[in-house]
Amino acid sequence: MTGVATDPPLHPDVRPLAGLLGTWRGEGAGEYPTIESFRYREEVRFWHVGKPFLAYAQRTWAVDDGRPLHAATGYWRLTPAGTVEVVLAHPTGIVEVLEGRLLPGGRMELASTATARTATAKEVTALHRVFELRDTVLAYTLAMAAVGQPLLHHLAAELHRVEAP
Amino acid sequence: MTGVATDPPLHPDVRPLAGLLGTWRGEGAGEYPTIESFRYREEVRFWHVGKPFLAYAQRTWAVDDGRPLHAATGYWRLTPAGTVEVVLAHPTGIVEVLEGRLLPGGRMELASTATARTATAKEVTALHRVFELRDTVLAYTLAMAAVGQPLLHHLAAELHRVEAP
Repeated sequence: MTGVATDPPLHPDVRPLAGLLGTWRGEGAGEYPTIESFRYREEVRFWHVGKPFLAYAQRTWAVDDGRPLHAATGYWRLTPAGTVEVVLAHPTGIVEVLEGRLLPGGRMELASTATARTATAKEVTALHRVFELRDTVLAYTLAMAAVGQPLLHHLAAELHRVEAP
Repeated sequence: MTGVATDPPLHPDVRPLAGLLGTWRGEGAGEYPTIESFRYREEVRFWHVGKPFLAYAQRTWAVDDGRPLHAATGYWRLTPAGTVEVVLAHPTGIVEVLEGRLLPGGRMELASTATARTATAKEVTALHRVFELRDTVLAYTLAMAAVGQPLLHHLAAELHRVEAP
């Protein structure tokens, strides 16, 4: 990238999130009352540029034929009070703002404080994301209130770190 | 990336946006009543994965010392009715949803239909983005209503395509 130091030190504000840095791969399972259940492969990448946030990008592919499924991208912040703040954009025309806590044992629980969408996007009104980081394993679950359904379990995956930061 | 074809064809839904694909670099100038004016270098990247959206990432650096300034990431969609829909996340804790039109002569005018933010982010209530694409030149302006100010000019930049898609 233009004019940026190649390896700036991690900003102290996000040091408690350092365990997320790197590239993660694994598999997950999705379900929701309005769709057929499915299995997916996933790649997640967390990186930093020396500023007080982590950048985040994820993609998923169908286990059966490798076709691209979903993607999301955004940023993770950590406030002096210990609140994790996450902003994400989805190619389905949805954005989400999540807030939560970094809990002992590498657990993070994040709930949406806002969602918004383009005119043609499906309605997603609430999201609840739980992450469990144990060394080189990152597991997460996602519950979602969407298209008229209440907050219901949607995704669960377990990823393994394949590249160090 | 895991299990994805290396070079899928561009999805027909986003073919009218094909001129954006590639890597763009250039310089811009920023101003706002609440801050000192500044000049920045910028890199913008548009790419696709064969699905009906373009992925987008941009970063800026100070012209004087090359320190990283801002970044944003998200997705661009185009509806059958010709509406451009954009969702963006910012490391400042802000998300935006924009809608607008692809106009003759490579002009796009996009206005925010929603913004949202984390508890510690600055208030940004409206954004108005104009893009002008002329072959290998991409120019844009951004007006912003933020921190109690009305919608006012904030950024203008001219970028040149440095890498084809």
